[in-house]
Amino acid sequence: MKPLNIGLVGYGFMGRTHSNAYASVNHFFDLEYRPVLKAVCGRDAAQAKTFADRWGYESIETDWRALIKRSDIDAIDICTPNNLHKEIAIAAAEAGKMVLCEKPLSMDTAEGELMCEAVEKAGVANTVWYNYRRVPAVSLAKQLIDEGRLGRIFHYRAQFLQDWTISADLPQGGTALWRLDAAAAGSGVTGDLLAHCIDTALWLNGGMQSVTAMTETFVKERTHTLTGKVEKVGIDDACAFMCRFDNGSLGLFESTRYARGHKALYTLEINGEHASIRWDLHDLHRLEYFDHRDDSLVRGWRSVHVTDGDMPYMKHWWVPGLQIGYEHSFIHQVADFLAGIAAGTPVSPTFREALETQKVCDAVLASGKDRAWHEV
Amino acid sequence: MKPLNIGLVGYGFMGRTHSNAYASVNHFFDLEYRPVLKAVCGRDAAQAKTFADRWGYESIETDWRALIKRSDIDAIDICTPNNLHKEIAIAAAEAGKMVLCEKPLSMDTAEGELMCEAVEKAGVANTVWYNYRRVPAVSLAKQLIDEGRLGRIFHYRAQFLQDWTISADLPQGGTALWRLDAAAAGSGVTGDLLAHCIDTALWLNGGMQSVTAMTETFVKERTHTLTGKVEKVGIDDACAFMCRFDNGSLGLFESTRYARGHKALYTLEINGEHASIRWDLHDLHRLEYFDHRDDSLVRGWRSVHVTDGDMPYMKHWWVPGLQIGYEHSFIHQVADFLAGIAAGTPVSPTFREALETQKVCDAVLASGKDRAWHEV
Amino acid sequence: MKPLNIGLVGYGFMGRTHSNAYASVNHFFDLEYRPVLKAVCGRDAAQAKTFADRWGYESIETDWRALIKRSDIDAIDICTPNNLHKEIAIAAAEAGKMVLCEKPLSMDTAEGELMCEAVEKAGVANTVWYNYRRVPAVSLAKQLIDEGRLGRIFHYRAQFLQDWTISADLPQGGTALWRLDAAAAGSGVTGDLLAHCIDTALWLNGGMQSVTAMTETFVKERTHTLTGKVEKVGIDDACAFMCRFDNGSLGLFESTRYARGHKALYTLEINGEHASIRWDLHDLHRLEYFDHRDDSLVRGWRSVHVTDGDMPYMKHWWVPGLQIGYEHSFIHQVADFLAGIAAGTPVSPTFREALETQKVCDAVLASGKDRAWHEV
Amino acid sequence: MKPLNIGLVGYGFMGRTHSNAYASVNHFFDLEYRPVLKAVCGRDAAQAKTFADRWGYESIETDWRALIKRSDIDAIDICTPNNLHKEIAIAAAEAGKMVLCEKPLSMDTAEGELMCEAVEKAGVANTVWYNYRRVPAVSLAKQLIDEGRLGRIFHYRAQFLQDWTISADLPQGGTALWRLDAAAAGSGVTGDLLAHCIDTALWLNGGMQSVTAMTETFVKERTHTLTGKVEKVGIDDACAFMCRFDNGSLGLFESTRYARGHKALYTLEINGEHASIRWDLHDLHRLEYFDHRDDSLVRGWRSVHVTDGDMPYMKHWWVPGLQIGYEHSFIHQVADFLAGIAAGTPVSPTFREALETQKVCDAVLASGKDRAWHEV
Repeated sequence: MKPLNIGLVGYGFMGRTHSNAYASVNHFFDLEYRPVLKAVCGRDAAQAKTFADRWGYESIETDWRALIKRSDIDAIDICTPNNLHKEIAIAAAEAGKMVLCEKPLSMDTAEGELMCEAVEKAGVANTVWYNYRRVPAVSLAKQLIDEGRLGRIFHYRAQFLQDWTISADLPQGGTALWRLDAAAAGSGVTGDLLAHCIDTALWLNGGMQSVTAMTETFVKERTHTLTGKVEKVGIDDACAFMCRFDNGSLGLFESTRYARGHKALYTLEINGEHASIRWDLHDLHRLEYFDHRDDSLVRGWRSVHVTDGDMPYMKHWWVPGLQIGYEHSFIHQVADFLAGIAAGTPVSPTFREALETQKVCDAVLASGKDRAWHEV
Repeated sequence: MKPLNIGLVGYGFMGRTHSNAYASVNHFFDLEYRPVLKAVCGRDAAQAKTFADRWGYESIETDWRALIKRSDIDAIDICTPNNLHKEIAIAAAEAGKMVLCEKPLSMDTAEGELMCEAVEKAGVANTVWYNYRRVPAVSLAKQLIDEGRLGRIFHYRAQFLQDWTISADLPQGGTALWRLDAAAAGSGVTGDLLAHCIDTALWLNGGMQSVTAMTETFVKERTHTLTGKVEKVGIDDACAFMCRFDNGSLGLFESTRYARGHKALYTLEINGEHASIRWDLHDLHRLEYFDHRDDSLVRGWRSVHVTDGDMPYMKHWWVPGLQIGYEHSFIHQVADFLAGIAAGTPVSPTFREALETQKVCDAVLASGKDRAWHEV
Repeated sequence: MKPLNIGLVGYGFMGRTHSNAYASVNHFFDLEYRPVLKAVCGRDAAQAKTFADRWGYESIETDWRALIKRSDIDAIDICTPNNLHKEIAIAAAEAGKMVLCEKPLSMDTAEGELMCEAVEKAGVANTVWYNYRRVPAVSLAKQLIDEGRLGRIFHYRAQFLQDWTISADLPQGGTALWRLDAAAAGSGVTGDLLAHCIDTALWLNGGMQSVTAMTETFVKERTHTLTGKVEKVGIDDACAFMCRFDNGSLGLFESTRYARGHKALYTLEINGEHASIRWDLHDLHRLEYFDHRDDSLVRGWRSVHVTDGDMPYMKHWWVPGLQIGYEHSFIHQVADFLAGIAAGTPVSPTFREALETQKVCDAVLASGKDRAWHEV
Repeated sequence: MKPLNIGLVGYGFMGRTHSNAYASVNHFFDLEYRPVLKAVCGRDAAQAKTFADRWGYESIETDWRALIKRSDIDAIDICTPNNLHKEIAIAAAEAGKMVLCEKPLSMDTAEGELMCEAVEKAGVANTVWYNYRRVPAVSLAKQLIDEGRLGRIFHYRAQFLQDWTISADLPQGGTALWRLDAAAAGSGVTGDLLAHCIDTALWLNGGMQSVTAMTETFVKERTHTLTGKVEKVGIDDACAFMCRFDNGSLGLFESTRYARGHKALYTLEINGEHASIRWDLHDLHRLEYFDHRDDSLVRGWRSVHVTDGDMPYMKHWWVPGLQIGYEHSFIHQVADFLAGIAAGTPVSPTFREALETQKVCDAVLASGKDRAWHEV
């Protein structure tokens, strides 16, 4: 197997999911390439060292520019807060490195456009970690839609509901809570959660024409971890939007961190002329399917336990009935990325594809401010 | 419409469900016959009068023998505790009345045999109120099985779980709690709950060859409502049994009143070569169906919302999506009984058919005592 | 018991549900009043006669003006298409009759205002059949909210999804399909389905400030049953809207008749600071409840089987575990209406209360056209 | 970290799950020990080599006796068919190796007793891979029971239902299908599936006193892969048994490979005086919990999404709402085993503890033959 030397920037939650994917992928997938955990980069050397020891990274760096300069690194994996994506990605591309970037691609469309231009100019492989596409049930949904089983699509709806920021005592900012800090995250639930819903929707149902949104910040001020002061909260705590897709279907999207009882409830449903599909991250190994063409006496929503060998990715795992979990979606993305390198083909979503999600996010955030419909 | 004059014996819980069925049936079903609530009979005249006023019975009786003697009564409906079924049914039959008897048919097989002989000798229409057969989802299960959709049957399992007698402070006996008094009920959960499971099983899956059972009385003594004294509890609080059906399938049955969290959870599941079926009284308007012949990518348990007009009994009710409830099963049984009279055909389960359930109950109770397998 | 003489206008689907409620209510509720089925009114005398015979109406009328003139009628129950509500209701009120009107109250707010003024000037008891408030699980939700269990509310969402008009071959108009004819119905899913969602929302979560909507007519032309010609479809096939409530919470509503797999899926969910509630018409006897104050190890959504005697309306029915169905919500409304008459208190929703739903519908339909936010 | 040198015998399905556990455990758990994949042993050198390359084993062996003789091996992990467990385990113990043995411990109690004596005499750490104990939801059930939340236990029921052997065309025996060959497996579903149910039950609910069982072989003859001839099937295709536990509760167990629609449906339910628990392998990240002490208005089965950091093992994984899968139960067992070695404490289930399951299996199989109750 050929080595692919990885330089990871950031060792937070996403650093763990990616590292696990690199460590596991060759145990389950037959690939030409083998990721080699060459270096992890973080500002705090001690923490970087601890992380490196745990996951088997061969070295650490404390400056991502130094990491990018290293000739023994093939690919830069960006797991930093959103406000650093652009600079790192462009520098990496200019240094001829492949770039794997956490989602959302960028703080906004303008940044994202520069990033796309950089990787395209450099001709380097690139991808964005919209991992939920590669939950087998979601991949199966894509397959069923592409086979035409649903017919003309009328409705698409998705929600991503959480409840972890309801307490007004929760601070914002800093390493652990940068997602609540507009300066680091760019937006709140829109970039963090809706971006996932939008990426999947564009993939499953095609482009969006126009959107109108409603946003809200329920807790207006929070202590900032870095300054110690009570500061205005700049992110959106909740965001809902309606849209029209290019295919004529109607979309309804909602995300919030104030939905008591939901930890990470990403759901989606698509209603077609002949059949409908539902999925729910809280039971990610199931796909709900309804087919109107079934014999009417036994027609009903089917709960498909997506664990059989003929279902996407599942031949690589266990036996029917035995479910996989969240982190496997990252393993699948690495497997596809490595296969893409071997084949010389881009791996979806590329930066350019992920930029479409950014455009929708921008339109949504703009509409949240001016209360008007926006073309995407 | 022709009148069918009803004389109801007993005005407890079952008296209500039957009266409601008589009062409602012609609103929803087109029938030759119309039940007329001629008389209700109970020992307490004041209570009988209150009941009669509420439901529109034209008269009351306090002695069931007097009721049976009345020439203006066509059918006797027995809603008394089990220990009175035999005597009333035989007298009614001998008086040439049709007989509708609450389940279980009798205290034991010997009593039941006499009852069968009486109605058969008299040539009167007769039925036993095993109402769950006529929950539309259960009727649909019967239809699917009869159409051969399941193929060879391997397994049948049923349970009827409740939790209302866990408190040792609950007394036994008297009007409200005769089901806890062996003298009035004959047995505990076996006759009260398992009898339903057995009736449905024999209907759906054919006869049983042999059984072995385990019974238990968790609370050994309870105050008797009638005597005021603490007395030994004679009923079975819980009963489980295994069996072999004539068709080679294996059966597993369980009932208890000590399953915390279950109010009246009657469930059944049948596993066939090609397809399986599940049902649950707590969501009685749904049938779960799995068909192995489905395309493997979208194969899963289907939740069939049994509310469409092409499903058993449902064209008489509302529109798709709008569910009916528990009491409708009794309305269906009355509708079928009235149609049967008009057509001159027996309505299942007849006394003779219900006697088969009695035989299984006897074998189960005997096995509970001697711990051996019993032929049915 | 005192009689309350009912004159029913219309004998379609709603005529059946109301008639059943009148026929059953005194069997299950102890009330001072007893509805007497005095007359049913419909243009087709033969059909009216058939309906009267089935349900026991003493007489028929073919002109609702004649019905209103009758001195033996106490209350007029309006079950006609929406375009007739106003005229009948006002005439009935002016004749001093109580008025029970099917929902939505009127074709628009202006009409509704006139109706309110008429019943208020006449001082007659009045109510609108928003029956879903009285599904026990929904009434329980109201009780839990009023007890303050949810704390500050952040989100309210509701949907009413059907799939029965997907076929372009379905005609519009006439007796059976007036709901597809804008002239008779006023609007499509907004007045038919969203009106239910809005009524419940206003009741559970208080008033709405502003809305923005998206509407669509997927099938643009259908044969009209009355003219035989292919005509433009004037109703909304689908409608979604976002809103802000007076209490600061965000709302999301959607209705369609193009959601394959959903027969009559009315769902609602409310997310509060401490607790959340969910309900679904397809399993109307259950309420889902999540309470964050639960011990964290056993914290989860609870599926409450709303069949116990201490739950709203349920002491009037069967025993724990045995569910009721759709039509019971109408029986409950009649029971409350009769109790209200006896007590001399208005029964919610009155015309005036139902007018609030009309205002929201008008704002929603206006927004669907001009794509702007509208104050309610 | 201290190395623990592993010698794995067998590279089938279980070889994969164990290897993955060894490879991953130190990424997620802080432990004194680190498993080193020293050698894998299998009869086919080429396949062993392929397996070793994939998982990073440093060497291969084709004779387990040679493996046991190696001084660089600390622990022998037995993943062979059941008929080899005894010989390998005893030899390993005698060589002073720790022994990790796949379940069931042995072909029967007599063998198991010898194995217990061997490891106890040698004083080596030992454990049996009853991995389902360490699914977090099942571990949580144990914790809730040990805290006394359920009160007196009345009922325990478990089932393990599969459907993969329904086709009569499936052969028996050989590498892939040794579970269908009585010579290699000892029994059918009893040792393969019920053994899991029994192990969990003994752990959660204490010892069993007596059992009575029913077994069946639906397909009487199958082609044997090794001989090519149609041979009698010696295993049990289905087995159900009833039992009495030491604590007075009643047990009901069932397993089959002929339950159409169930892939690997291991379910368990425990009914206590105050509370009940349910679990289901098909949604292994959820625990259902009912507590009768809840406020009656909001009392219902709770669906606990076992993904929070305060739940067993879950602080080592992701964030609330993100589920783990099947293989994680093996990682947990390795983590506990390594911690046990460091602490010098035995890790449950030891051989001696697993022998109790063997005794129940023997009693069950004996009862399946003579149809009598057997003391355990």
